[in-house]
Amino acid sequence: MRQAARKHSFNNSEQLKSQRRQQRTVIDQKWQCASNVDSLEQLDTFHRAIRPYLCLAQVFGMMPLANVLSNDPQLVKFQLRSSGTFFSMLFLLLGGFKTMRLTAKLIEGGINAKNIVGVVFFSSGMIICLNFISLARGWSRLIVPWNGIDIIMLFPPYAPTKRSLRFKLLITGCTLGCLTLAEHCLYYASSYYNYSMQFLNCQANVTRVPLRGYMNKEFAGFFDNMPYNFIFIFYSFFLNFTFTFIWNFMDTFIILISIGLAQRFQQFATRVLSLANRHVTDAVWHELRMHHILLCELMDLVEANMSHIVLLSCLNNIYFICNKLLTIFTKLRYPINYAYFWYSLLFLLGRTCTVFMCASRIHEASLLPLEVLSMVPSDHWTEEVQRFTHQVNNQFIGLSGSRLFYLTRQSFFGMMATLVYYEFMLLQLDAKNNNDLPALCV
Amino acid sequence: MRQAARKHSFNNSEQLKSQRRQQRTVIDQKWQCASNVDSLEQLDTFHRAIRPYLCLAQVFGMMPLANVLSNDPQLVKFQLRSSGTFFSMLFLLLGGFKTMRLTAKLIEGGINAKNIVGVVFFSSGMIICLNFISLARGWSRLIVPWNGIDIIMLFPPYAPTKRSLRFKLLITGCTLGCLTLAEHCLYYASSYYNYSMQFLNCQANVTRVPLRGYMNKEFAGFFDNMPYNFIFIFYSFFLNFTFTFIWNFMDTFIILISIGLAQRFQQFATRVLSLANRHVTDAVWHELRMHHILLCELMDLVEANMSHIVLLSCLNNIYFICNKLLTIFTKLRYPINYAYFWYSLLFLLGRTCTVFMCASRIHEASLLPLEVLSMVPSDHWTEEVQRFTHQVNNQFIGLSGSRLFYLTRQSFFGMMATLVYYEFMLLQLDAKNNNDLPALCV
Amino acid sequence: MRQAARKHSFNNSEQLKSQRRQQRTVIDQKWQCASNVDSLEQLDTFHRAIRPYLCLAQVFGMMPLANVLSNDPQLVKFQLRSSGTFFSMLFLLLGGFKTMRLTAKLIEGGINAKNIVGVVFFSSGMIICLNFISLARGWSRLIVPWNGIDIIMLFPPYAPTKRSLRFKLLITGCTLGCLTLAEHCLYYASSYYNYSMQFLNCQANVTRVPLRGYMNKEFAGFFDNMPYNFIFIFYSFFLNFTFTFIWNFMDTFIILISIGLAQRFQQFATRVLSLANRHVTDAVWHELRMHHILLCELMDLVEANMSHIVLLSCLNNIYFICNKLLTIFTKLRYPINYAYFWYSLLFLLGRTCTVFMCASRIHEASLLPLEVLSMVPSDHWTEEVQRFTHQVNNQFIGLSGSRLFYLTRQSFFGMMATLVYYEFMLLQLDAKNNNDLPALCV
Amino acid sequence: MRQAARKHSFNNSEQLKSQRRQQRTVIDQKWQCASNVDSLEQLDTFHRAIRPYLCLAQVFGMMPLANVLSNDPQLVKFQLRSSGTFFSMLFLLLGGFKTMRLTAKLIEGGINAKNIVGVVFFSSGMIICLNFISLARGWSRLIVPWNGIDIIMLFPPYAPTKRSLRFKLLITGCTLGCLTLAEHCLYYASSYYNYSMQFLNCQANVTRVPLRGYMNKEFAGFFDNMPYNFIFIFYSFFLNFTFTFIWNFMDTFIILISIGLAQRFQQFATRVLSLANRHVTDAVWHELRMHHILLCELMDLVEANMSHIVLLSCLNNIYFICNKLLTIFTKLRYPINYAYFWYSLLFLLGRTCTVFMCASRIHEASLLPLEVLSMVPSDHWTEEVQRFTHQVNNQFIGLSGSRLFYLTRQSFFGMMATLVYYEFMLLQLDAKNNNDLPALCV
Repeated sequence: MRQAARKHSFNNSEQLKSQRRQQRTVIDQKWQCASNVDSLEQLDTFHRAIRPYLCLAQVFGMMPLANVLSNDPQLVKFQLRSSGTFFSMLFLLLGGFKTMRLTAKLIEGGINAKNIVGVVFFSSGMIICLNFISLARGWSRLIVPWNGIDIIMLFPPYAPTKRSLRFKLLITGCTLGCLTLAEHCLYYASSYYNYSMQFLNCQANVTRVPLRGYMNKEFAGFFDNMPYNFIFIFYSFFLNFTFTFIWNFMDTFIILISIGLAQRFQQFATRVLSLANRHVTDAVWHELRMHHILLCELMDLVEANMSHIVLLSCLNNIYFICNKLLTIFTKLRYPINYAYFWYSLLFLLGRTCTVFMCASRIHEASLLPLEVLSMVPSDHWTEEVQRFTHQVNNQFIGLSGSRLFYLTRQSFFGMMATLVYYEFMLLQLDAKNNNDLPALCV
Repeated sequence: MRQAARKHSFNNSEQLKSQRRQQRTVIDQKWQCASNVDSLEQLDTFHRAIRPYLCLAQVFGMMPLANVLSNDPQLVKFQLRSSGTFFSMLFLLLGGFKTMRLTAKLIEGGINAKNIVGVVFFSSGMIICLNFISLARGWSRLIVPWNGIDIIMLFPPYAPTKRSLRFKLLITGCTLGCLTLAEHCLYYASSYYNYSMQFLNCQANVTRVPLRGYMNKEFAGFFDNMPYNFIFIFYSFFLNFTFTFIWNFMDTFIILISIGLAQRFQQFATRVLSLANRHVTDAVWHELRMHHILLCELMDLVEANMSHIVLLSCLNNIYFICNKLLTIFTKLRYPINYAYFWYSLLFLLGRTCTVFMCASRIHEASLLPLEVLSMVPSDHWTEEVQRFTHQVNNQFIGLSGSRLFYLTRQSFFGMMATLVYYEFMLLQLDAKNNNDLPALCV
Repeated sequence: MRQAARKHSFNNSEQLKSQRRQQRTVIDQKWQCASNVDSLEQLDTFHRAIRPYLCLAQVFGMMPLANVLSNDPQLVKFQLRSSGTFFSMLFLLLGGFKTMRLTAKLIEGGINAKNIVGVVFFSSGMIICLNFISLARGWSRLIVPWNGIDIIMLFPPYAPTKRSLRFKLLITGCTLGCLTLAEHCLYYASSYYNYSMQFLNCQANVTRVPLRGYMNKEFAGFFDNMPYNFIFIFYSFFLNFTFTFIWNFMDTFIILISIGLAQRFQQFATRVLSLANRHVTDAVWHELRMHHILLCELMDLVEANMSHIVLLSCLNNIYFICNKLLTIFTKLRYPINYAYFWYSLLFLLGRTCTVFMCASRIHEASLLPLEVLSMVPSDHWTEEVQRFTHQVNNQFIGLSGSRLFYLTRQSFFGMMATLVYYEFMLLQLDAKNNNDLPALCV
Repeated sequence: MRQAARKHSFNNSEQLKSQRRQQRTVIDQKWQCASNVDSLEQLDTFHRAIRPYLCLAQVFGMMPLANVLSNDPQLVKFQLRSSGTFFSMLFLLLGGFKTMRLTAKLIEGGINAKNIVGVVFFSSGMIICLNFISLARGWSRLIVPWNGIDIIMLFPPYAPTKRSLRFKLLITGCTLGCLTLAEHCLYYASSYYNYSMQFLNCQANVTRVPLRGYMNKEFAGFFDNMPYNFIFIFYSFFLNFTFTFIWNFMDTFIILISIGLAQRFQQFATRVLSLANRHVTDAVWHELRMHHILLCELMDLVEANMSHIVLLSCLNNIYFICNKLLTIFTKLRYPINYAYFWYSLLFLLGRTCTVFMCASRIHEASLLPLEVLSMVPSDHWTEEVQRFTHQVNNQFIGLSGSRLFYLTRQSFFGMMATLVYYEFMLLQLDAKNNNDLPALCV
């Protein structure tokens, strides 16, 4: 059978020669890219696409990487003595201070399911931050092989994608960013409106709402102890914003990574699918299998670095969804409160759903080559093809939460069913509490 | 081994010749069918069997297809400018108007778990309708390959089925239709009886029940705002009927599609089973494997077009079953109320069960060939047979709800167990409410 | 490799001759058994072992089979005109009468979770009975192939088992029978003691407890309408006993069938295990694979006939366990009440556990050959061995409840976890009811 | 292909000779170890590493083994007439006495979910003890093959591990021991502080807390019936300590066994991983596959002996975690009570988590060789490699709880989700109880 294949190729020697010439050009190009950083910048690598997000994360103290703007992924490294690390330390310090103050207040006043939210929010923010710092430490070990695979998959025979990775990540990131910002603004609008209405209705002869009072209420009595000046107002607002950012960035980052990986598996599948009903030599199958192994190894690398963050993200989302749902039957006073509540609940649910759907697309793309493999005629059904089939069939490819669960559509369905349980039970535990509106003025 | 097979066939050359003559006749017939639409009409294709239902769906604005009565599946296409699309738009408009009125009433009066049912019913009806319109847009891409497979499987060597597909679909559809109609009538009977008894008992000196009052109560105060004339009565009744139809048609359609697919997998399995303990050439195995791949591709196509509808159907059924079960311990006033309640509950449960059982039959039929494959003697255990076995073993064939869950018997069991949980919890949440009968006259 | 194997066997021709002589003797014996019914009686077939239970079932109207005591399994057939069918009809009539009376009483008095038990008990008894009649109709199609496999597996090279199947089934059946009888007696003891204590304490100047009053109370006011004579007392007691028997026989029967099947899979595994580290020809592997297919086909046959009974048994057990557990915190008056309650609860739990453990042993025994197969040296790793391995690996062998769930240890664990949920929720729903003892005399 | 491999080895004959010389040395060493017990002592076997724990268990009557300090694992046997058995009997007797006294007290006073804990603690301690005695009876059948595998895997070509098994087990055991001891001491501190504060506050004119009163309260009125002297004080303290030890030792033992097994699977994987991208002869693959089978057989042996203990441990942990969580919202009087409660809850959760994580590492280590196997080039993809791949892929390797569930990360996640359910429900059942502090002085 192999001899026949060889004869066939011998006859088409002219065609082959031109093919070889093309291949040599591609190899030269790849070599140039791998060695020359400037030409690398022309390619639609994941490194180039994720770079803006790394910068953003650095500003908020999450990814302390040196040379984060560099074209060369090998230069983007964790450095202990860098501005990034300094930012991180600063944020951890300020955040830790805030968290401790909140905890102290909580212990004084007595714990219940509703006032614990603030502490959970800030302490989970700190844990997320630490996890991202740990990710930053291993970032160069992750992005360098990824870049290597990108260089392979951005040249023929891999077809270019309709939309560049950079464009996809930009659109996704911006959309999520805007939604987050809208949620944050709506939160302030809702809480300020509440405060001002209460103030105007309950205090006779007052027409102007004092900002200081609102500040003090919003930031948990912060200005009882601190002088009321611009710096501390800025500090308070900034800290709130940062922690909201951290909280949303975690999910966004998982989504971006998933898109990046799914893209490569999709490209791989597209190449295999283009081979359907064509004569394919064993060498090509071998190359495909080797590339598949490369992709799997990349997947393992991502998994090893990200799985704790995925677990944290899921637990976090479940907790905050449960918490939001708990007050679903509570009557609210003003339309803006309803607007904020429903917007933020749907945003949370949508974000969680997006994380699962994007991550599950990796797994689904990884199974696509199977279709072509079953169509390979028996004459060309060599050991290489068989092993490739076996490999695709038997290996689970996809993100997991510390391997406690895998991000697939089915596990998402199970998680939602469990969430409905929990919700029913929480509602029952909460049933005896009075859900009517409290008096406006105490 | 292959040489032996060839020798064997050489000896039986006479027999072979007649076989070939037969095969040629079959191929000619097939060719004629594929090219000539009138002879296609003689065949028991799925297109012919589902056609009446497509017509019905078109009348109710669900499947806006042009040439829906045509013999040729290629002509049955979605057209933007057609009567079907006009009907769909009209229904969506009327339905949307009704839904908005109901929602407005709901928000005025305050939401609770019981008065939300009407809004859910109408809005889910709208969503179902939109999903079916989307299905109609891709219908020709689905039915043309299906018809191709039908032509293959309606000729030898595939054995004809005992009962034609058309007959099966007709019986199933009519049975479900009658049960739906009975449920709908029972609903009116129950609600009219309630109204008239209340009217006769509470209003002194009255012997005739005014229809207008009943209409107004039944259609949520519709005639407070609208003039009371024949057109609006018809509109009200018709809208109610249409949405009940849509709601039931979704499940019926999934059942019909499942029967159609299961039939083909069953026929395929029957052919394979007939080969047990017989000498089968590699060419036949190859043909079988290719047909299996064709069936799998059809399955994928159906899955891609239907999975959202399946998910919608399951969520819908679970919601309405939970809702019905919630009032299972509520005392009712008249026997007809009990009759309606139990009939409609059992109908709902039975319909859900039928959807799962029919859909799971696809999966079960797809596994039948394995038995014969394990019986193939080792002399004839070629690579083709091995790959065929592998293919049947490793691929999951069956309908899913957006791949969040698969319609198998085991997932049905799991869903029922979950339903029992939810029910227990809902009963508990509902436990404090008084389940006694309210006063008849207020 | 095969040539080497042949040479090897050529050298040991003397040894082979004696082997062949032995084999011929065995084949002769088998043939004799298959043709001569009297010699069949000497063998430890499943038919012989289950026969006493079939007789017992016939007496209680469950298995209307003709020639149930015959040695020849082919004669044990369902016959419409036989004493068995007459018994069945009679029991169904009497049972139906009782069930209808109970249902009528229930509807009169109002339904709740506690007084519905009696109706569920009797109507499930009727359904079980009908299922066993349906099993009886297919019994000869089941037992004849089973007997064929028994004849194969009771001769060398299959090793005889330490304890005969008959002995095992006898011990299991008798143990379960005795436990059931004890439960039944304890029930009467407990209820009679309650009645007599109440009678003696509440009625002044009475020293003898009237049996008639007890009878009337026990059999739900039966003697209010019927004359109080010996026949009707006997009828009442007998009906109660019969339905208790039916209820327990179902589980016992599943256990016995499981033991029978597990035994054969165990014997098969033992033979394969004895081949470890020995030179095994391809013919032997082929024979083993064919026997494995025979066993699998038997399993499918049993599954097709029994799966509804298995489902019924599990649902039944879950219902009665939940029901018993519901009253676990209810205070009881006398020690004998406690004794009955705990004995019957533990008996129920133990019986359910035994059903699962016995049934799961089939699956476990079916996986045992894998160990030897992985030890086969590569020189002897022929296609036969490979296919055998594949077959054992990829086929699920075991009983299921209408394929909604499989009887394995893991599903048992899941079922128990679910039972704990249900129990917690039932306890909560029941929590508001007063669990104190009611006044002794009303 | 094999001939080519042979030629290749023929050319490198010189190299081979030196290899063979090395191998012979290794075999000699192994032989010496297997025969000479003293040289065995030099090796880092599991027997040597677990020995101290066996001694400890013997002192507490759990593992009645003779010659427990012996270097030779074959001498460590269960003997009926030994000091170990005597200790075990004594403990069972004393424990049984205590358990019966507690049960009697419980029945007198009425059972509820809170006072049943003591009886569950002592009776589960007895069951654990009996299970360990049963393990001791099969210990020599387990440790002798384990030692055999240890001898194989402690010599080249298996690489030595960075940290010796003995060291790992020592660290793990000591850490867990210290944490247990701290928990035990904290318990006494908390209960003594409670008693003394109550005594000092409620009894006027008293400055010294009588130890006897505390003793009597702590040991459930033990000294009401017994003379108050040193022996009985010692007995009481010792029994409490022993049962706490037993309870913790069970989990510790599972962890130690898991570490031991995971280490060997890890070493095996390391050897396979070192073969990546190298030319490996079929003989080496065969040796590897045989060693893999040896490891699997060891796993089966451990599984058969330990699975009941694993089940017991999990059920035990779930019960005590649920029980602890039940009082999570109960107000406590003193900081030391809070310290004890939270320390012991976190200790319990951490211990359960450690059991699952350590046990799941076995499964994970067993899958590591797959990566290398997929990298084997097609020229060297012999039947041996294929079978090895198949073996690693299709066999589940890991500890289970009587095969009802497997100790993997995913089942741990499921168990935690279930625990949250149970907890919610228990909290609800408990909701009506008053969680305020009772009066200090009654």
